Amino acid sequence: MARIYNFSAGPAVLPLEVLEQAQAELVDYKGAGMSIMEMSHRGKEYEAVHNEAVANIRKLLQIPDPYGVLFMTGGATAQFALVPMNLLGAGQTADYINTGAWAAKAAKEAKVVGPINVIANTEKDIPTRLPELSALRFTPGAAYVHLTSNETIAGTQWPTFPATEAPLVADMSSDILSRPINVAQFGLIYAGAQKNLGPAGVTVVIIRKDLAERVGEKTPHIFRYKTHLEENSLHNTPPCYIVYMLALCTRWLLKQGGVDAIARINRAKAALLYAALDASGFYKPAAVREHRSDMNVTFRLPTEALEDQFVKEAAARQLKGLKGHRSVGGIRASIYNAFPTAGVEALVAFMKDFEKRKG
Amino acid sequence: MARIYNFSAGPAVLPLEVLEQAQAELVDYKGAGMSIMEMSHRGKEYEAVHNEAVANIRKLLQIPDPYGVLFMTGGATAQFALVPMNLLGAGQTADYINTGAWAAKAAKEAKVVGPINVIANTEKDIPTRLPELSALRFTPGAAYVHLTSNETIAGTQWPTFPATEAPLVADMSSDILSRPINVAQFGLIYAGAQKNLGPAGVTVVIIRKDLAERVGEKTPHIFRYKTHLEENSLHNTPPCYIVYMLALCTRWLLKQGGVDAIARINRAKAALLYAALDASGFYKPAAVREHRSDMNVTFRLPTEALEDQFVKEAAARQLKGLKGHRSVGGIRASIYNAFPTAGVEALVAFMKDFEKRKG
Repeated sequence: MARIYNFSAGPAVLPLEVLEQAQAELVDYKGAGMSIMEMSHRGKEYEAVHNEAVANIRKLLQIPDPYGVLFMTGGATAQFALVPMNLLGAGQTADYINTGAWAAKAAKEAKVVGPINVIANTEKDIPTRLPELSALRFTPGAAYVHLTSNETIAGTQWPTFPATEAPLVADMSSDILSRPINVAQFGLIYAGAQKNLGPAGVTVVIIRKDLAERVGEKTPHIFRYKTHLEENSLHNTPPCYIVYMLALCTRWLLKQGGVDAIARINRAKAALLYAALDASGFYKPAAVREHRSDMNVTFRLPTEALEDQFVKEAAARQLKGLKGHRSVGGIRASIYNAFPTAGVEALVAFMKDFEKRKG
Repeated sequence: MARIYNFSAGPAVLPLEVLEQAQAELVDYKGAGMSIMEMSHRGKEYEAVHNEAVANIRKLLQIPDPYGVLFMTGGATAQFALVPMNLLGAGQTADYINTGAWAAKAAKEAKVVGPINVIANTEKDIPTRLPELSALRFTPGAAYVHLTSNETIAGTQWPTFPATEAPLVADMSSDILSRPINVAQFGLIYAGAQKNLGPAGVTVVIIRKDLAERVGEKTPHIFRYKTHLEENSLHNTPPCYIVYMLALCTRWLLKQGGVDAIARINRAKAALLYAALDASGFYKPAAVREHRSDMNVTFRLPTEALEDQFVKEAAARQLKGLKGHRSVGGIRASIYNAFPTAGVEALVAFMKDFEKRKG
């Protein structure tokens, strides 16, 4: 098979060796005479997979004891509602930092549940950027502070996180496990799987256990973090096969040396691309230098016609998924954990060639 | 590979040829140079899979135009909350028919959302049974009437459904696509995939479109049927790989001749088992004759010790997953669409042998 370079923003590239193992095991899981997809979620084979996925994530992020790891569904988009449904008490407000399309969606959905304050807003800024840490003014007594650690569309990423009095809640869908974080700095972290964790279909939630107690009686049991915490995410049937893929992907990451090792690789991959952008007067990075994302490298060409041609020619060379999000246009190279350095090198070579011909 | 007979109640057996096709396509989907798991949910390959799954379900159940087919997540358990969050207006009540563990859970979760009436209750009856249609007294003006078409634990199944003035809402998780139904008789049907549809991780919802308009402004967008209806279940990233499996499983079912054909096979499989039970004084069917399920055949042996021994000896003969649900004990043979007739014959043979030795 000729494997292409898949720059898709998510669902995204997975490690080839993980796919090959999944393929080998698909029909007959470890000699059980059936697929892991066919097994009871209460049986010992699936239980081992489930618990391995939890343990791998705990180990990779060095998650302290007061935190639980949950597997939920509905993606980050469901969490936009579940966070306030669980953490926002009657009469309280929460602070939201609006840094782009994803943070804005989180805030919009939270407003349906209860009152929030958008305390900083860089959503429409061009070049794309984040607010300065020193300029943030939090609301005294806020139930929590919400931010989006990496804006997949804007191509921005928080280099460090603000110190907050209220629990800090982060949507880390597009950079979880891509770099070390201090989990103790957060009250709750959530991430849809389909970028750095595995295929779409499971959402990882890391929650400081005491926060799960905040939930009121009007939140249905299935939507309470408390329920899933108490039942090890087995309150009802989990998306077993996706959790299995998550176990394989996190096992792969441990084998790569963990989060520190992959962060070095991720930084180097992004640096290659940003260096190529900075050395060119033809390509224009979309984000300010100090807030550039190592996961989603966004840039523009002089015209939209050239951007279309760029995407088309790149695709013909097996560099696929480079078209920017439909809401903003431009070019986006998503280079998550599983994206190989050779693919970044191939893109840089193509960029130079394209500039030489069209610049 | 020696494939075992998997009587698991769900996740459950899948068609072998579906698993083999999934395996063959896993690493490289139709020469794309990547897995279907790695592809954007906005790309044309996934779109074709998604739309095929919808079209197959529409065709199999002859779903009329005024109904939409949605792919959601969280299993039937999430629907227990979502149904009242969408359909139960302020000041309204809904009717629930409690026929066992699953119907009881649906009612319990609905109560968190709003007032309901349990209008019939056979939950604790032994032998397990359903209420008589003629004895049902619906609440005038109820927002909807909820029932569970097949009780997986009790082993009961509605042979026909009550005519209701209010929209009839049915949890069909354990018998959807196993027999013909008249969709027009229902307002809403929901089903977790992991029994008759595919692996765990997607929930199919069939909804009369006008009902989706009932939702109030306080329900978060992600939890509105209206949102998913308007966006063809692509409001956010769906569980793409599970939808792909759903497309393969429904394609397989069409190839078997559709729902009429599989219903004949299902009835014959269940009849084999019930005939063996009825011919024996040793085994005792758990459900009354007129409400027996074709999907989950439940029965008891004279003692729990014999039941344990039965399960153990059966497993040694590659007849696995026969232990009854932990809440009720006994034996349960789940024989969904993909469960082969040969497996039922093997179980009947084993039952006769076991009775001869222990009876």
